[in-house]
Amino acid sequence: MLQNELCMIDRKEGFTPEIGRLVSMMDYARSTTEEAIRGLTIEQLDFQLDEQSNSIGMLLHHMSSIERAFQIMTFQERELHDAEWEELETGIELGEKAKAVIQGRDLDYYWSELSLVRAKTLDALREKDDAWLEKVTPYGWDEKANHYFKWFHVMEDEISHRGQIRMIKRRLTT
Amino acid sequence: MLQNELCMIDRKEGFTPEIGRLVSMMDYARSTTEEAIRGLTIEQLDFQLDEQSNSIGMLLHHMSSIERAFQIMTFQERELHDAEWEELETGIELGEKAKAVIQGRDLDYYWSELSLVRAKTLDALREKDDAWLEKVTPYGWDEKANHYFKWFHVMEDEISHRGQIRMIKRRLTT
Repeated sequence: MLQNELCMIDRKEGFTPEIGRLVSMMDYARSTTEEAIRGLTIEQLDFQLDEQSNSIGMLLHHMSSIERAFQIMTFQERELHDAEWEELETGIELGEKAKAVIQGRDLDYYWSELSLVRAKTLDALREKDDAWLEKVTPYGWDEKANHYFKWFHVMEDEISHRGQIRMIKRRLTT
Repeated sequence: MLQNELCMIDRKEGFTPEIGRLVSMMDYARSTTEEAIRGLTIEQLDFQLDEQSNSIGMLLHHMSSIERAFQIMTFQERELHDAEWEELETGIELGEKAKAVIQGRDLDYYWSELSLVRAKTLDALREKDDAWLEKVTPYGWDEKANHYFKWFHVMEDEISHRGQIRMIKRRLTT
C-alpha cells in the first residue's frame, strides 16, 4: 500500500462512505502497529519491563481478543456467550494468568492472528452500510453506544497499546 | 457531558456532518486523557520512569504543541514560520531540553493549556465544512494528506500518549 493512501481518511472502494472513512483510520492505525513491531524476536516479544508489565506479545494478543469480542457484540449484536468469554478472557483481561500463557510465540504468530481477525472484520463491514454504523445498541452494563463508536473504540484501544509498545520497545534489553 | 453522548460517533450540532463525527472522536479521546490525569500532583506530573522517560507533564504539553502546529498547517495551510517552530519545538520534540524546561507545573496549567488550544481548534472547525475536511495538502517533506487525516492524526497521537500516561501512572512512586 502506498504511504499516501494511508494519509487520506476518505471513502474506500467496497465500503459505504462512512464505513470507508472508519476503515481508512483502522488501516492507518494498523500500519503503525506493524511498524512498531517489525523485526521483533520471540525474546523481545516476551520482554517484561517490570513485574507489572505486559509484554509486547501480550498487548498484540489483547488487540486480537478485543477485536473478536467486538465482532460478536456488533455483527451479531449480542453479549459474549460463556464459552466465548472463556476463550477471550485471558487476552482481554491480561494480568498474571496471561503472563504465564502468552509467551514463546513468534511475531508471525501474533501478526497472523491480528490479520486473520481483521480480515473477518473487513468482510463483515463490507456487508454493512452507514445506517448500520449509526445503529445504537447496549454497551457494557448500562451504557449505549453506536456501532461507529464501538469500532472507533477497537481502533482507539489499538493505538493506545501501540503507544505502550513503542515505550516498551525503547527499553528492550534482549 | 453525559457518558452516553461520548459513546456516539455522530453528527454534532454546530459542525458539518463529517466534522461532527471527527469532533465526537476527539471529544471521547480528550475525556479519556482527562480521566487518566485526574488528581495528579506536580510531583506526579514531573515523575520520570527512568532516564529516557518523558514525564506525564511533558506528554500533556506535547499534545498541546502538536495541536497548535496542526492548527497552523491546516487552518492557515502553511508550514510553521521559524518563530513558531522555535516556540513549539521543545513541546513537539521533547527529549533532554524539554525535561529541563517542562517541570514544576501543576495539573491546572496543563489542562488549561490543552483546553485553550482545543477551544481554538473547535472554533475554527465550526467555520469549516466537509469539503474542507477532504482537501488534500502537503504533509511532511514529500507526502500529501487530507485535512481529515491531519486531525485524525492529532487525536491518534493524543491516544497513543494517553496509553503511555496510563503506563507511567501505574508506576508512580511519588
